[in-house]
This record gives sequence, C-alpha cells and structure tokens, in this order.
Amino acid sequence: MSKILNKFNLKDERNLSMLMDFYELTMSNGYFVNGLSDTIVYFDMFYRKNPDGAGYSIVAGLEQLIDFIKKLKFTGEDIDYLRSKGILAEEFLQYLLTFKFTGDIYAIPEGTPVFPNEALVTVKSKVIDAQLIETMLLLTVNHQSLIVTKANRIVRAAKGRPVLELGARRAHGADGAIMGARASYIGGVAGTATVMAETMFGVPATGTMAHSWIQLFGDEYKAFETYAKTYPDSCTLLVDTYNVLNSGIPNAIKVSRDVLEPIGMRLKAIRLDSGDLAYLSKQVRIMLDDAGLTDCKIVASNSLDEYIITDLLNQGAEIDIFGVGERMVTAKSEPVFGGVYKLVAVEEDGEISPRIKLSENEEKIINPGYKMIWRLYDKDTHKAIADVITLAEEVINESVPYNIFDPVYTWKKKKVTNFYAKKLQVPVFLKGECVYELPTIEEIRIYCKNQVDSIWEEVRRFSNPHKYYVDLSLELWLVKQELIQRYRNSEEKNKK
Amino acid sequence: MSKILNKFNLKDERNLSMLMDFYELTMSNGYFVNGLSDTIVYFDMFYRKNPDGAGYSIVAGLEQLIDFIKKLKFTGEDIDYLRSKGILAEEFLQYLLTFKFTGDIYAIPEGTPVFPNEALVTVKSKVIDAQLIETMLLLTVNHQSLIVTKANRIVRAAKGRPVLELGARRAHGADGAIMGARASYIGGVAGTATVMAETMFGVPATGTMAHSWIQLFGDEYKAFETYAKTYPDSCTLLVDTYNVLNSGIPNAIKVSRDVLEPIGMRLKAIRLDSGDLAYLSKQVRIMLDDAGLTDCKIVASNSLDEYIITDLLNQGAEIDIFGVGERMVTAKSEPVFGGVYKLVAVEEDGEISPRIKLSENEEKIINPGYKMIWRLYDKDTHKAIADVITLAEEVINESVPYNIFDPVYTWKKKKVTNFYAKKLQVPVFLKGECVYELPTIEEIRIYCKNQVDSIWEEVRRFSNPHKYYVDLSLELWLVKQELIQRYRNSEEKNKK
Repeated sequence: MSKILNKFNLKDERNLSMLMDFYELTMSNGYFVNGLSDTIVYFDMFYRKNPDGAGYSIVAGLEQLIDFIKKLKFTGEDIDYLRSKGILAEEFLQYLLTFKFTGDIYAIPEGTPVFPNEALVTVKSKVIDAQLIETMLLLTVNHQSLIVTKANRIVRAAKGRPVLELGARRAHGADGAIMGARASYIGGVAGTATVMAETMFGVPATGTMAHSWIQLFGDEYKAFETYAKTYPDSCTLLVDTYNVLNSGIPNAIKVSRDVLEPIGMRLKAIRLDSGDLAYLSKQVRIMLDDAGLTDCKIVASNSLDEYIITDLLNQGAEIDIFGVGERMVTAKSEPVFGGVYKLVAVEEDGEISPRIKLSENEEKIINPGYKMIWRLYDKDTHKAIADVITLAEEVINESVPYNIFDPVYTWKKKKVTNFYAKKLQVPVFLKGECVYELPTIEEIRIYCKNQVDSIWEEVRRFSNPHKYYVDLSLELWLVKQELIQRYRNSEEKNKK
Repeated sequence: MSKILNKFNLKDERNLSMLMDFYELTMSNGYFVNGLSDTIVYFDMFYRKNPDGAGYSIVAGLEQLIDFIKKLKFTGEDIDYLRSKGILAEEFLQYLLTFKFTGDIYAIPEGTPVFPNEALVTVKSKVIDAQLIETMLLLTVNHQSLIVTKANRIVRAAKGRPVLELGARRAHGADGAIMGARASYIGGVAGTATVMAETMFGVPATGTMAHSWIQLFGDEYKAFETYAKTYPDSCTLLVDTYNVLNSGIPNAIKVSRDVLEPIGMRLKAIRLDSGDLAYLSKQVRIMLDDAGLTDCKIVASNSLDEYIITDLLNQGAEIDIFGVGERMVTAKSEPVFGGVYKLVAVEEDGEISPRIKLSENEEKIINPGYKMIWRLYDKDTHKAIADVITLAEEVINESVPYNIFDPVYTWKKKKVTNFYAKKLQVPVFLKGECVYELPTIEEIRIYCKNQVDSIWEEVRRFSNPHKYYVDLSLELWLVKQELIQRYRNSEEKNKK
C-alpha cells in the first residue's frame, strides 16, 4: 500500500481560495477600511452535539485544511470578480492580491475522539486571516468528522468483520465520494470501491462485478463461468440477479466445481445485494458448506448501517464482509456535523481580552478566551477519565489530585487521582508556516483505533451512552461567569 | 448577472476520470479480454422513490455529467496505477490509454420534474463506455437532483419570500457546497453565501456580517455604527449576539437614526439567527415599525427547512427573507437520492434484446428495453396529466384518445383525451459528440419554475401527495411480462 501511496499520491490542484461565504469579504473589507486589519483575534472551531446521540465523535479533515491554507491566494481574476461586486474598497482588493495566511493554528490531530464544546481547531491570527479561512475550515472538518464518526460506528457494529465503503454513487459530489472514502478509511473500513480514493490517498480500492455483467450475458451460469475464467484467483460472484437460492448459488457452486477446482483455485466469495440478508446468508452458508466451499466468504450489502448490521449479527446472519454505501458516505441517519467557528478573544494593548456570545439557550453560550484542552488518562488502565478545558496559560499538575466540576451543575464534582494529562491540540501553523508533519493515512487509522480503544465502552455505546466529563477549570469558569454577568448588566441598563 | 456569468465562468480543471467504482474496471477488462468490447448496450439511470415522501422530484446535474464525459481520458499515471493492481490485462490498459467515450446519451433536461422509474439518463454505447461512466453519472445526477428537489420544496414553503442558500460550512466537501448552491439556485433560491458558486456558475452571492464582527468590537452599538458607516446603502445588521429585544434592535434603531437617516439612507434589514423566530420576528416588526422603519426587512435563519418555514408562516411570523443552511445543502431530512444505473438491453445480431433484473421485491423489477418517456399535457390547462413509458420506436398519436393503465394493478385504467404529448429525453451525446446546447443557469431556473407549475397542486403537496400516473405502454408491458415469465420458468427448471 505505502508504495502505491508514495507513487500515486495525486494532488487536488484546484484553487479553492474563493470557497468562502461572502460575509467574510464584507467583514474583512470593513476591518480593513476601519484600520482594524492588524487586530489579533482568537477563533475556536467546536461543535455542540454528537451526531446520532453518540457519546463522542472523531475529528478529521485537518490534512485538507492544511492543503487549503498553504494554497490560499487570490488571483487577478478573483480580484476582478470581487471588484465587479461594487462594494469592496480598491485598497482592500490590492491587499487581497498579495494576501497570505500569516497566523497560528492549533488543532486536535485527525482520528482523535472528541467531545462537544472542545475546540477542534483554534486560530490565532490577524482578524482578516482568521475570517477568510472560516468556510473551508468548517466545511472540511465538519464533513470528514461526520463521516469518520459514522464509519467508526459501522465498523464497530461489524465486530471485527471487514467493512467495505461503496458509497460514491450516492455521495454529495466528487469530494463527498473521495473525502468520504478517506474519512471512512480513517474510521476503520478495510477498503473502498472508489478508485480515486486510492490514487489520491492510498485507500485500498477493490471491486468485482455489478448486475450488468450477469445481465449482459443473459445466462447467469455463462456470466459466472466467464468471470471465473478471467479472474480465477480472485473470484467473487454476485448471486442475486435472478434468484439467490434457486439460481445464483447453484450456478456459483457449479462454476466452482467446473472451472475453479480443476485448476486448483477456490471460489473466494459470493455477494448478496438484496432480499432478507439474515435468512439468505444462513441458507447460502449451508449450501456452500454442503458443496465443500467452507472457505467461501459471504459478502452482504444493501442499505446497511450500524443498526442493521447489529440486528443481522444478533439474528445469526452468516456474513463475513459488509459492503456499506449511502448510509455511511452521507451519514444518512444524521447528515450534519454542526461545527461552528466563534471569536473567543481579541488582543487589546497586548492583553488577551476574552469575548463571549450569549444565547437564549444556556448550552449555546460559548467558552470565552484563549484555551487549552487536556485529556486525563488513568495511569493503570490508560483509559480516558475526563477532559478539562483551561485557559491557555494554565498547567495541570499531575502529581496532585485534580478537582473537576460540571460547568452548569457546579455541585457535580469529582476528584481525579492517579492520572496523567495530555494536551489535545498540537501546533499546525505558526506565523503562517506549517509546522505539523502530516502522518500517513495508515498512521492516522491506527492512531484512531487506539484512541477509540482508550474511551470506556460505556461511552462508546450506540444508544444512551454514558456522558463523558468535559469540565472547565475554575479559572476559565470564573472568566466566563464574569463576562456573562457583564452583558446581563448592560442589558438591564438598556431596559431602563 | 449574465455579464458576470460570461466573464467569470471559471472551470473545474480536475480530471475526475478515475472517480469510478473499481468493479467498472474489472468488468471492462473482462469484456475486453473475452472479445465483448464492441457489444452495444443500453443503460437506464432511474430512481425508485421520491425523497421526503414527495409526489415528484426534479432532475439536475446534467451539465457536470457532460463536462465529465468531454474530459474523460486516462493518463499514463492512471495506467501505471492500474497496472500496479496486478489484475488487468496489458492490452486492456493500452486500450484505456486511447479511450474516448463514443456512445449516445439521452437525458431529461435539468430542472424537469420527474417521477420514479423514469430514465433520467439513457446511455447507448459500447459496453465499456457505458460501464466506465457509471459512478460519475450516478454521483452527479443523484447529488444535484437531491438538492434541487429539496431546495424547491423550501422555496415553495416560503410562498414567494426570497430564500438564501447559506449551507457551505455544513456541506459534504467543496463540491457539496458549490454544486449544492448551483442546484439550489435552479430550485429557486434567490442567491447564495458561497462566493465560488458565483465565480463558477453565476449564482448571485451575498453576505453581510457574522457574530464575530459584533464580538470583535465588544460593544454592539459601536459594531453596528461602524458597519453602517462602511456600507450605508446595503446595511443589514445581525441583532442576536447578546439579546435581540433589549440590545440588538434598540442598537439597530439608534444606528438607523444617528448614522443612516442623516445621510438619507435606510436600514435595509436586520437578521435573526437564533431564538423563537416567530415570537421575536413579530416583536421586532412592531419595534421597527414604531421607529418608522416599516421598510426594514427581517431576515431569519437557524436550521430552517420547508416544515419549519411553513410552521413559522402559519404562526404569523413577520419574516421577509429566509436564510437556509444545513437542511438544504445536505437535504437533511432524507440525504440520499437513490438513482440506480441498470442494463436494460443488449444488441445481438443487430437486434435490440431487452434485459431484466428480477427481485424478491416486485417494485424493484426494472423496465426492460430501449424506451422513451412521454409527458401528456392537457390542451386547455397545460397541466401534466400523466407520463407514459413506451418502447423507443413507439409513437403516441395525439389525435386519438390514449389508454393508460397501471403496470402493477392493471385493472386501473384511464382514457386520456384532449392532450398533447412531449418526449422528456433529449439527445445529449451522439457518437461521442455533445449535441446538446447547454442552457444558462438562469434559463434552467426559469424552465424549472414553469415545469413545476405544470404539475397539479395535489401532486406538489409536501405530505401525502396525490400519486401521479407513470404508466407503461401495452407493448412495453408485454415485453416485461414475457421476460419475467422466461426467468421464472428457468428457475422452476433449476429447482427440479
């Protein structure tokens, strides 16, 4: 694999710099003409709710964010277009023409389990720099985090059986297919049907036949025979074009006997793509075993997801490999990862001034300030105990017990002992230079598996998972309360 | 607009030829090495169920399919990669190196309302040509049909009020955002936040401010004042950063009085992005009207879709413009358009031999043969009465009554009179050459609106719509029954 990866790591040469929301331009122009261009700001990208009622999510998409920022650049054609909108100052347009991202970015590495309200990405930069990357930052991290999270659920449901990603045809555009296959692979699928996910990212691509192969020949036996003769050492036959038990399996067994076995080859697998997969797979297993094909695998596909796979296995389905399409590549059960990008601090006279956004909804009030996220692990089990969000300058002393408390129900307290603490974010860009060495996709995939294993099983449950602690340090909590109070007071004043 | 469109119609220069399922390569190689390369086949792309339980869908994505096929070409690097897989014949790889699509494609134009089991695209070509375009054909038509269908529902729910597309940050990758904005515009939205949808497709892009603008200044009035001075003739203010009624609206009114009105300008709009939109919009309307700002529009956003918009309007919400994000760009309520691509006929000795795929599920049995779809319109109302699928060579005689009957419940019959018939598919490629003149996006958008208007209101209902007739001609029905019988008989034989 890694040979192919190195040799065929094709790049996406598109310039996506203009993939932004127009308000980023009106705001940036506004900052520029009002002399605020050099204001240093802090933005956090975080989310508020795990999809599918899960206990955690997994972050991905950082590699594409890095690629975007490295290539960020406005062409003369872009500037001509922007000028034609008639509302942006000419000096600002000239500024854009030589614009380059010069800020710092900290991020949680791809494949890490994450929790609501944690900053997956933090940007510290001049305000225009931070504003112009907003859409692509959200888009790529939201999309791939959505898919890796879903794929990992599906892979876990399969309990060790390989899962193949087959969703390109139902994906939301070419990137939906390619990046979806990338994220699924990080989440643990064994391979993909999408060829370009291999040429771009080294995700192993495989495939055998569609119903059209069988229909073309008209005669199912003739179709199977021709395929077996063409691919004797990797023969997987699709058996549900006409009738699985009366036609598909009898023909597959006949081809195995007449074509493969005489030349010392084995029928590798059969694939079911419709019908009652639990019932059919059990009947097929018996028929194959009776024919001496105990080593022939059964592949099943047809609108599968973690819930249906769990049901199938509970019913004793004899399925060795799952093919999963639309429900993984679109995260059908909840197709939105709701990451947001919020200003949390502004530098004023060299001081970091925290900023807040209130809301009618208590949970939607953001955590202000420049912060760090820590994960506390048990020294013996190496399981994650809790995450703590602190101000950036705080240090967690591992040698003394650490008191955590719920940021809303503050009487909920817990003393953590026998732990070590790990910072979740790592530096990615410093002063506009990428300082992060990209891991290979295989490394991310293994890291993801290990990190998911560090989460307690109760938190990993598909339904009604145990709530993992993500608490605020006392210092941060006080900063937040003070800011909330300040704005509440000014509202009261307005009312008078 | 059209000036910008012509001037900045940026092209996507990616080569997506390798965006295919690997089985297309194993099958194509199989056809090649077995001397079947020149076999002429017919494939239909159709779908089985309208998303959201709707009465119809709208097709889109043809422009991107055409672009893909025009550029379809395998590079030396692609061939090197394919060779490294170790299972494709060298002669086949050489064949791919000079491969060019040489077939015919017929398709239903973008923006047309369509119904289950109708071929949105039909491909007649050599089998390898038809096979290699499968994934991109499905991907682009499935994706954009999904979004245009959803967007049109949301636009219809807004009952004439403009809808803006704001979903890029939650889209599934860059194409999800850009093509999503394109499809939404065809479906009737007034514009998008996504800049690149304008530079690539001429979709009008607009935007004003995010919460970060207000947070940066710390003081809401100061933030509004600065914005109003920067954009006096297009001033829209976001009023929910701290508190809409106690802070946002009082500050907006003050800015209007102190900054805009003295220089003869008007506050264009305010935007609500959280909270109880029905309640807040009504209160805000009163406050604005009391301040003499009766012309100030109210824009509302926050996880809207056709259901919530309908509810808001039923509750008398005073909203003039809707901003819709994630629920449109991901078609959240049902994020999959389930188009499939099925072999329906093969040429044998110059004769078209229809092919079928059976299924345990009656509705999943495909319509075999090379076919045409006709829409019958009432001569007086110009409303669509029914669609009829016929064999390609059939002609519908408009001068005599036409008998249609349900393909499953054949006793359900209807005699159609006073009608004219229109073929839905048009030629797009003939012998590999594109013969279709691409309409502009504005033309497609207007065409879509007119075509949707030709559908009876009962079919357009969001829930429990009236079922539109899509019937088979007697000739086609007989071909289908004959094929089903033939395979059922051969199954019986296998059982013995």
